Amino acid sequence: MTQDEKLDRLAEIAVKIGVNVQKGQELIVNAPVDARALVQRIVAHAYDAGATLVVPLFVDDVVQRARFVHADEESFDFSPAWLYEAMAKSVGDGAAVLTIVGSDPMLLAGCDPARIGRAQRATAAAMKPVRNLISSFATNWSILSFATPGWAASVFPDEPRDAAVAKLWDAIFAVSRVDQPDPVRAWRDHAATLRRRCDVLNEKRFAALRFRGPGTDLRVGLAEDHRWAGGSVESRNGTVCLPNMPTEEVFTMPHKMKVEGVVSATKPLVNGGALIEGIWVRFEAGRIVEAQASKGQDVFRALIGTDEGAARLGEVALVPEASPVAQSGLIFRNTLFDENAACHIALGQALSLNMEGGCDAARGANESLIHVDWMIGSGQMDVDGITASGAVEPVMRAGAFTLG
Amino acid sequence: MTQDEKLDRLAEIAVKIGVNVQKGQELIVNAPVDARALVQRIVAHAYDAGATLVVPLFVDDVVQRARFVHADEESFDFSPAWLYEAMAKSVGDGAAVLTIVGSDPMLLAGCDPARIGRAQRATAAAMKPVRNLISSFATNWSILSFATPGWAASVFPDEPRDAAVAKLWDAIFAVSRVDQPDPVRAWRDHAATLRRRCDVLNEKRFAALRFRGPGTDLRVGLAEDHRWAGGSVESRNGTVCLPNMPTEEVFTMPHKMKVEGVVSATKPLVNGGALIEGIWVRFEAGRIVEAQASKGQDVFRALIGTDEGAARLGEVALVPEASPVAQSGLIFRNTLFDENAACHIALGQALSLNMEGGCDAARGANESLIHVDWMIGSGQMDVDGITASGAVEPVMRAGAFTLG
Ligand SMILES: [Zn+2]
Ligand SMILES: [Zn+2]
Ligand SMILES: [Zn+2]
Ligand SMILES: [Zn+2]
Repeated sequence: MTQDEKLDRLAEIAVKIGVNVQKGQELIVNAPVDARALVQRIVAHAYDAGATLVVPLFVDDVVQRARFVHADEESFDFSPAWLYEAMAKSVGDGAAVLTIVGSDPMLLAGCDPARIGRAQRATAAAMKPVRNLISSFATNWSILSFATPGWAASVFPDEPRDAAVAKLWDAIFAVSRVDQPDPVRAWRDHAATLRRRCDVLNEKRFAALRFRGPGTDLRVGLAEDHRWAGGSVESRNGTVCLPNMPTEEVFTMPHKMKVEGVVSATKPLVNGGALIEGIWVRFEAGRIVEAQASKGQDVFRALIGTDEGAARLGEVALVPEASPVAQSGLIFRNTLFDENAACHIALGQALSLNMEGGCDAARGANESLIHVDWMIGSGQMDVDGITASGAVEPVMRAGAFTLG
Repeated sequence: MTQDEKLDRLAEIAVKIGVNVQKGQELIVNAPVDARALVQRIVAHAYDAGATLVVPLFVDDVVQRARFVHADEESFDFSPAWLYEAMAKSVGDGAAVLTIVGSDPMLLAGCDPARIGRAQRATAAAMKPVRNLISSFATNWSILSFATPGWAASVFPDEPRDAAVAKLWDAIFAVSRVDQPDPVRAWRDHAATLRRRCDVLNEKRFAALRFRGPGTDLRVGLAEDHRWAGGSVESRNGTVCLPNMPTEEVFTMPHKMKVEGVVSATKPLVNGGALIEGIWVRFEAGRIVEAQASKGQDVFRALIGTDEGAARLGEVALVPEASPVAQSGLIFRNTLFDENAACHIALGQALSLNMEGGCDAARGANESLIHVDWMIGSGQMDVDGITASGAVEPVMRAGAFTLG
């Protein structure tokens, strides 16, 4: 298969399995300008699937950075609210949304962190209406990625640019099942596997999970009425979409007050352009009470100090060591990939699809401005489920599922 | 000067002279994805000038064409109204607008003309609010161009792609005065020349213009309270902008009932992907009563049959043969350039800035869905002004201004 054929297959599965755009539906495509070649193929497949209108909204990394270099101090509290409001209107009227990510993780390196923070807050505030529609699955949506030169250089810093891009594409195509004889079928089978795994875990109704591995002995109490999710989601308009491509995790909601013990990260964490390595923390009553990192400790401590909920958990996820993302052996520096490489926990905001009836603090749902996934799994990780009566049942052994 | 330096100068004059973005003002940049390199430089200059926020809205020719190849029949009555409404909101709130053009003129060649027509009507209807704000100069705005490969191939069909792009850039830089030692100063001087020319013509208050040249003897009665415009415009927010870059014309409003005689086109007309050559028409009482073309006659007759106003004039413009666009000797197949190569008339809609108090049919303003500029001037063109009392005064001789 040529590179073009593989890109076309990626576009096809993004349209048919990812966002699953319906006949008569409008589709918004958020994409970096660099991803133009993929967008063009997505547009063709979406119209072939009967989309009434496909509207790409491109962003340019260079333009994003230029602002931090050239704009006046007053600029950083502005954001194009009119554009985000319009997107919310379109999604509210039924448009599906496909988002392509691939920014250089180091794009804003060297820019003033205070300006970045102000700009992020302004954007977050302006995007709230459309973000709420997306996160509550008012419509079918999906996120996939494109190997931009900046991102590739950051994953393969020692390779020449073209080689880095080619290597990143090989990795993306592999973990996206594009190499398989029938990728659409392969994704349907994979989604069914994740669904069965969720069904089994939902039936067990564990009160807690216990993670054991090198440097880790952590008990994560689960929220009341927690729900396991993973793979595909039926959005409120009745269309089944696969929100993340790739996706290998099943995940649910921790109880924000019921996490106890110690845990060590098994992979570095990239946050705000900084690399944080060798994280070790201790939880008491759901809250981080001790935090160390061998590199980037200040950044990590600032992160967990963002707000009250930033030192508590909003997600716990199970990913087998057999995951193609784990098997690639790469650090993608992109959550869409890295969170599918290992069991992880997330600091911060809980996800509404992980609790019957949506997030409810009284039943244990955490609240925060942040949601940062953080890898704790490996081939040496054992996970047990603990029932309300205290019975213990193995869930994973040496990074492999033994249940579901 | 390197190509990059020239591109940066083009960006600088677009920001400082073209749109003249003000400190504290938001700027929307409409651009083809191909023009990314120019957009990046415009963004930097706009932030340097104190813009609060620069929002590029990119379009992709390939995406536009994909719709006509892949979409269902029902698609073509849709347009992203939510996006155009949002732009209208932003412009209404004070944003300036810079538009970069450069589409392949033959982009939609071979696509179903009925589908193209439906899509154009749907877009025109959805864009009406923002178009009205622009055409009434509610804000400062400007249009410039980028030498895309598709456009360059269409201007230089016999050159290899890279050579065609390089040649088109050379032409754009020359007519945009980028080659001159101080382009910003050169544009200020040029705008002052156009302003003086308008002032002289406005003072004359001619009742009609008479055009004579090979195959042409045309009397164009001018609308009551007509106003000559050209070069820069003070928008209603008080900011002076230069709406077209390049611009060499001074133009005013014909009286829709008072055009008499015959006129021959001096350059081919590109319309809707078709080339129309050798146009000859006869006017009676303002209306085309005979129309011939040596090539594309059917397309031309369909064009003037669009609606009642399509066979009458909405603009008459004077451009000297010394214009850098005329001197380039090129057919750019892009109105932004070609209308600055020769005296022209436009079929269709009149322009509100050409009549005191805006367009008024009773005083002679034409109305139509179309506005198509059409070159009639050359180095052999003589133009006279005729006063209300019948006195005749030379305005141009052999394509050169003798007045103003
Ligand atoms: Zn996760
Ligand atoms: Zn997460
Ligand atoms: Zn004109
Ligand atoms: Zn015109």
